[in-house]
Amino acid sequence: MNIIEKLNWRYATKEFDVSKKLSNEQLDLLLEASNLAPSSFGLQPFSVIVIENDAIREKLKPAAWNQPQTTDASQLILFAVNTDLSEKDVDKFIQRISETRNIPAESLAEYDGMMKGFIKQMSKEDVINWQAKQAYIALGQLMVSAAVEGIDTCPMEGFDKNEFDNILGLKEKNLASVVMAAVGFRSADDKYQALPKVRKPLDELVIKL
Amino acid sequence: MNIIEKLNWRYATKEFDVSKKLSNEQLDLLLEASNLAPSSFGLQPFSVIVIENDAIREKLKPAAWNQPQTTDASQLILFAVNTDLSEKDVDKFIQRISETRNIPAESLAEYDGMMKGFIKQMSKEDVINWQAKQAYIALGQLMVSAAVEGIDTCPMEGFDKNEFDNILGLKEKNLASVVMAAVGFRSADDKYQALPKVRKPLDELVIKL
Repeated sequence: MNIIEKLNWRYATKEFDVSKKLSNEQLDLLLEASNLAPSSFGLQPFSVIVIENDAIREKLKPAAWNQPQTTDASQLILFAVNTDLSEKDVDKFIQRISETRNIPAESLAEYDGMMKGFIKQMSKEDVINWQAKQAYIALGQLMVSAAVEGIDTCPMEGFDKNEFDNILGLKEKNLASVVMAAVGFRSADDKYQALPKVRKPLDELVIKL
Repeated sequence: MNIIEKLNWRYATKEFDVSKKLSNEQLDLLLEASNLAPSSFGLQPFSVIVIENDAIREKLKPAAWNQPQTTDASQLILFAVNTDLSEKDVDKFIQRISETRNIPAESLAEYDGMMKGFIKQMSKEDVINWQAKQAYIALGQLMVSAAVEGIDTCPMEGFDKNEFDNILGLKEKNLASVVMAAVGFRSADDKYQALPKVRKPLDELVIKL
């Protein structure tokens, strides 16, 4: 099956088969795919929260407008950004580059200064938005990787993020949720899988210069 | 090769082989992959601009801090959002669903109202940011699809978007550029391909609940 066939196979799964769970290997693959996503400067300014606990998901459900996938998917994979991103996070990243590539941290001084300067000149809101965008790349990478592996996903943006943060205790961790994917396996009864995909004709989406 | 190997093969290519161009089929595949990305409501609130013309790319180069991939990649694929998103765009989308799925537009009245209400309650800036996030999912989907097909990419967020919009005449089209990917084939000389990827350990990226 080629990649376009995989992307056509993917759809926003609303009804999951509650009896089917991802294996540990499948879950790890999705997390690894998220971790391998490129991000601005390579800074990976987000956390990935795997929610499996049934009681927690029951609590989250009303904050996700009672969408059934909240509780019926195998897991929820939530992306959250850092509300307190600081020079310390850049220092940690520089340290990680230095160790991974076996080069002195001092040789990265210019890169270090550039990142810190970039973050400093942004408003708090812009820092959040910029981090969120990086998380969305990772979400895209997770969903394609899942489709390639025959794992279903439902991207979810419409949920009460503030309420999620309260229920999950994210505020104490200086995290704010931005988007999530329910992951698992489609129910044979999910009528959405049979609907033709609605997409712009390519000549309406694309401008060639 | 499995998907994780493909994702590890991908890196932000800085030096492209100028003699190698994507075939029409390869370019179409990347555009199709972008078009198949999920988006909020399915609305696809962005355009994809393919820039191949050498003279235009020479003009863009200074606005991309003279990064060589601006001119040396096979193409630039730029994502731009609608600065004037309106009820008309929702109407067009409803019409498209109606035609694709062969259902009366009237049966979508509730969905129509929900989308219009959602857009209306946002500030102009929030509408831009929300659209940009959808474009970032498509960027992620494009990059993974490219990697699967052995096509190199370099995601580029750091360029003077206002200057790009001026040079490309996007403002007259009510479009604003948000992010792009240079696409093509890595040069054997690009030293970055040999560097180990720097990533958070999974237990630092992931929180399990």
